[in-house]
Amino acid sequence: MSNTNAAQAPVSVIGLGLMGQALAAAFLKAGHPTTVWNRTAAKADQLVSEGATRAGSVADAIAASPLVVLCVTDYGAVRELLDPLAGSLKGKVVVNLTTGTSTQARETAEWAAGVETTYLDGAIMAIPPDIATDAAVLLYSGPKAAFEEHEATLRALGAAGTTYLDTDHGLSALYDMSLLGIMWGVLNGFLQGAALLGTAKVKATTFAPLANTMINVITEYVTAYAPQIDEGKYPAGDATMTVHQDAMEHLAEESETLGISAEMPRFFKALADRAVADGHADSGYAAMIEQFRKPSA
Amino acid sequence: MSNTNAAQAPVSVIGLGLMGQALAAAFLKAGHPTTVWNRTAAKADQLVSEGATRAGSVADAIAASPLVVLCVTDYGAVRELLDPLAGSLKGKVVVNLTTGTSTQARETAEWAAGVETTYLDGAIMAIPPDIATDAAVLLYSGPKAAFEEHEATLRALGAAGTTYLDTDHGLSALYDMSLLGIMWGVLNGFLQGAALLGTAKVKATTFAPLANTMINVITEYVTAYAPQIDEGKYPAGDATMTVHQDAMEHLAEESETLGISAEMPRFFKALADRAVADGHADSGYAAMIEQFRKPSA
Ligand SMILES: NC(=O)c1ccc[n+]([C@@H]2O[C@H](COP(=O)([O-])OP(=O)(O)OC[C@H]3O[C@@H](n4cnc5c(N)ncnc54)[C@H](OP(=O)(O)O)[C@@H]3O)[C@@H](O)[C@H]2O)c1
Ligand SMILES: NC(=O)c1ccc[n+]([C@@H]2O[C@H](COP(=O)([O-])OP(=O)(O)OC[C@H]3O[C@@H](n4cnc5c(N)ncnc54)[C@H](OP(=O)(O)O)[C@@H]3O)[C@@H](O)[C@H]2O)c1
Repeated sequence: MSNTNAAQAPVSVIGLGLMGQALAAAFLKAGHPTTVWNRTAAKADQLVSEGATRAGSVADAIAASPLVVLCVTDYGAVRELLDPLAGSLKGKVVVNLTTGTSTQARETAEWAAGVETTYLDGAIMAIPPDIATDAAVLLYSGPKAAFEEHEATLRALGAAGTTYLDTDHGLSALYDMSLLGIMWGVLNGFLQGAALLGTAKVKATTFAPLANTMINVITEYVTAYAPQIDEGKYPAGDATMTVHQDAMEHLAEESETLGISAEMPRFFKALADRAVADGHADSGYAAMIEQFRKPSA
Repeated sequence: MSNTNAAQAPVSVIGLGLMGQALAAAFLKAGHPTTVWNRTAAKADQLVSEGATRAGSVADAIAASPLVVLCVTDYGAVRELLDPLAGSLKGKVVVNLTTGTSTQARETAEWAAGVETTYLDGAIMAIPPDIATDAAVLLYSGPKAAFEEHEATLRALGAAGTTYLDTDHGLSALYDMSLLGIMWGVLNGFLQGAALLGTAKVKATTFAPLANTMINVITEYVTAYAPQIDEGKYPAGDATMTVHQDAMEHLAEESETLGISAEMPRFFKALADRAVADGHADSGYAAMIEQFRKPSA
């Protein structure tokens, strides 16, 4: 699995925001000699008190370990940090866990190839407190050999969820965006409901358990709709698009009547209306995929 | 729990669409003498062959049982069916499982009170194939005594998920709308991701298991955000609204670059922008509740 002794493989972490601190702490806890650097130096203090080595500069952080993990705000910051130090990256493996688009990931991979650096792009599907637990999913793409070489170290961030996707550097970002879209979809759905029930003085904490039951039920629909999407056929074994349309109209009216935002219900209904206009009145909800595939007007 | 012998309590089901058929079949299977009626009579054939009694008219269906369950397209259809028969409803318990708004539920309750009929409003959080399984959640509101009187019968539709909410007839509809909003949020989030990954030839069936892992992780956020919503304080233990804003922009750009719909990401981002404009740059995602509580412009 690895040609380095994982228990001792050194790693450098650049960027110690909420997430970077969690990553460095996880490496430390797993016994890796961990070198850290952050623009605002004070954010390293706690980690240093726990055994991390403070690098005086980005260059020092890069020099300290064969594996360099980056987690900063965006790809602009990544390039700002690395561009001036391209020479010192030669032979290193850089793992970039900063959130960005697949285009940015592929561009960075090209840049890395140009400076003879092995590049893995990654995405973290977890919040900082879940790092190093089984709730953390971390996705990697880029050269498989480099992933395998450092897999044992990277698994310190979440052994169960450490997933290699593809040699295409863009895929981890693409999955990241896809999964984040789901996250906002779920959370906004919950917030719409909490706002609605709030008008009847039902607490969000009262609603949450039932909301989570519903969320779990929907995973079964996702499983059922996925093959329909792949096959391009959307039989309505459950509710038809017409039934969904009517219920969406009810949600929108309910929201309007109760004086909360009806924007999201109206937006969802508009998408459903277009699916019906495209001939999907009697199709199941999976038919909506065609609306999501269309470029925005 | 019940003052009738549940195993033999008769029930009438009016409306035999996809859902009504599943309801009647569940009552039958649980051993209840079940009388059925549907506008298009042929939809009763299968049930009758399985032991249901066909009512020749809505009036006959009502006369046949002390408990009358309705499941038709909308409340307009409910009133169209019941209005002419108001006299014969006296003393009956009507359980209306048709989807509608809380306003419609309360109006129907008032109408029922006027004709001396006991009324329970209900909502079915399940698809027809899940009726009578543990995956079915059924919510009831209205007079508690009436619910308890017929609870044993109603539990045939899904014992684990049969839930009495409140004496306010509007609450089951309000929960229904709230949970449906979640359903569309989850499904649309999944569809956005499936469309995005589809551009890289990743199949929806490949994406679905990871999507479902993510969906399950989000239930933990829901649990964590609910007390923040109730308290009106939104500390960012995980990601700040600024981090969400940036990531939403990435999702929108990714979607635009890859030629799929960016409407939902742009809409989510617009909501997040407003939260930030309201001073929530450093708050956690629960701060978005304030945007959902505002009436649409
Ligand atoms: N937090 C989460 O729940 C979460 C989850 C998944 C993924 N992520 C991703 O992880 C990345 C970091 O997130 P975070 O929550 O740690 O954000 P954060 O707390 O805002 O930290 C941002 C980090 O980036 C550094 N930085 C920004 N611009 C820089 C520049 N030009 N030069 C040098 N350093 C710069 C900051 O340094 P200073 O301290 O000097 O400002 C800080 O260390 C983001 O891409 C985010 O999308 C976060
Ligand atoms: N399907 C689901 O997954 C699901 C889930 C939860 C809740 N629900 C709710 O359950 C209700 C029924 O849904 P469904 O899926 O069974 O719909 P459906 O298959 O379209 O059936 C609609 C039923 O309503 C009857 N109907 C409509 N207008 C009528 C009128 N004016 N007079 C008499 N009967 C009338 C229809 O009779 P005909 O056969 O004569 O047309 C049919 O029996 C809806 O409110 C829906 O939102 C459905």
